[in-house]
Amino acid sequence: MSKIAYVNGAYLPQRDASVNIEDRGYQFGDGIYEVVHLYRGRFIDEQRHLDRLERSLGEIHLPMPMSRAALRLVLMEVARRNRVQDGLLYMQVTRGVARRDHAFPRVPVPVSLVVTIRHIAPYPKDVERWTITAITHPDLRWARRDIKSVNLLPNVLARQAAREAGSAEAILFDEATGMVTEGAATSFWIVDTMGVLRTRHLDQVILPGCTRGALIAEMEADGIPYSLEPFSLEELRGAREAFLTSATSFVKPIVKIDGHDVGDGKVGPVTRRLFDVFSRHVHAGLGNVA
Amino acid sequence: MSKIAYVNGAYLPQRDASVNIEDRGYQFGDGIYEVVHLYRGRFIDEQRHLDRLERSLGEIHLPMPMSRAALRLVLMEVARRNRVQDGLLYMQVTRGVARRDHAFPRVPVPVSLVVTIRHIAPYPKDVERWTITAITHPDLRWARRDIKSVNLLPNVLARQAAREAGSAEAILFDEATGMVTEGAATSFWIVDTMGVLRTRHLDQVILPGCTRGALIAEMEADGIPYSLEPFSLEELRGAREAFLTSATSFVKPIVKIDGHDVGDGKVGPVTRRLFDVFSRHVHAGLGNVA
Repeated sequence: MSKIAYVNGAYLPQRDASVNIEDRGYQFGDGIYEVVHLYRGRFIDEQRHLDRLERSLGEIHLPMPMSRAALRLVLMEVARRNRVQDGLLYMQVTRGVARRDHAFPRVPVPVSLVVTIRHIAPYPKDVERWTITAITHPDLRWARRDIKSVNLLPNVLARQAAREAGSAEAILFDEATGMVTEGAATSFWIVDTMGVLRTRHLDQVILPGCTRGALIAEMEADGIPYSLEPFSLEELRGAREAFLTSATSFVKPIVKIDGHDVGDGKVGPVTRRLFDVFSRHVHAGLGNVA
Repeated sequence: MSKIAYVNGAYLPQRDASVNIEDRGYQFGDGIYEVVHLYRGRFIDEQRHLDRLERSLGEIHLPMPMSRAALRLVLMEVARRNRVQDGLLYMQVTRGVARRDHAFPRVPVPVSLVVTIRHIAPYPKDVERWTITAITHPDLRWARRDIKSVNLLPNVLARQAAREAGSAEAILFDEATGMVTEGAATSFWIVDTMGVLRTRHLDQVILPGCTRGALIAEMEADGIPYSLEPFSLEELRGAREAFLTSATSFVKPIVKIDGHDVGDGKVGPVTRRLFDVFSRHVHAGLGNVA
């Protein structure tokens, strides 16, 4: 079956789905995106993703492309037309098509909205089958990483460096301070040498991860302690456990970093517990799903 | 007449010229661009622009889309089909169309090449009719500004801030150090309080401006002294003269910054001289053009 994409009001075969060469997303990266996990036909953390979409758009002075209810219908329709129950919905909003000029179009043009979906394998029951390795890589991104923009070239280069090293993710660090920021396309966590679960606090230096936020909410409800204290590359080297969170991967253990085992190189107890906590979160409201 | 664009081998009406929604330029800003000035039918500083294109592509591990000779023919054909003698040629090369994934496509796909042109008013003979005002704005860009990528959102936001202040350019500065970097889409120069002509040295912090480079070569030939010492916002406030250089604007005087006159608020003698020097450069080889 040919994949179907939504582009500015039309559902089209994805291979024919296009945007004008003067779409500002193409010429300036002047746009915002979100990825929402569809799990057994349900959006996971939909509210958080749509909140973040609206916030990111607002930060670059773009309106929502349509009401939240209408957008939700488009997302569902893309899933339905592609017959996907377990997948990743991708949506991208850009400042539309206008004669090339850095500043915003003088006469506002309609924003562009593109939505696609792709099937992914369901979240595994067994955390052992969910492990990856990572590298560390300098964080070369701009100063407003809290905005989920499509200016992703530094992320692309970091992920490519990871792949060339045989790893799945790059853990970014500030070259001036040696402090870890986050993954190239994920939030990042460690259990430090003292056993403290840590992830970086939110500001303009990292993206406010939706899965990160949902996990923290679950941890709060369960009384699981954690610290939002940033950590250095050196602390990372001494970490007992490490894992990432993202809408694509939920909770994913990292067992090796830069070729060295994290802890004993196996999935640690805290990561295992949080994997289970998030599985419960994902399954909540699904009824009697095993 | 409808404008004609070149897109991946075809010359198309620009309103119908499009790229697939999974072009990596659209989803990641994973591409490089150049703008070349066409003046009375001749490319200005063509060699410098094609050198920089090739270098930027190489830095993000992309090949040239075709030989330089073939690319030159495409540029000329776009100009010819649009009947433009004085204009700006825009070319953009991206990593092509592939299923969305941050890392490069595992199986390389053809790069995308888009070329457009637009007419611009000819370079004026009178520098007084070429002045602008500017604002200062924090430089929020990524760490590799020497690469001319389409990750231009920080530039867009800075230019928009300038426009909202009634100005044409934003002069960027590093918030941590207070040092000036360059314009949002231009190279930037001052004549300092001691009368020294200064522009920032090249490294990864600014783009190596082609017009900047061509002007420096002309200055060297003429024995005009200059310094590549970076300068602070405070030094900028005390500057006698300020101007920008770019392929679009060549040498353009800035007579007001953040609402304050630069020097006496008129075009200064150094700027005037360099405007003439660059006019000569632009006209060189044109024959007996007045």
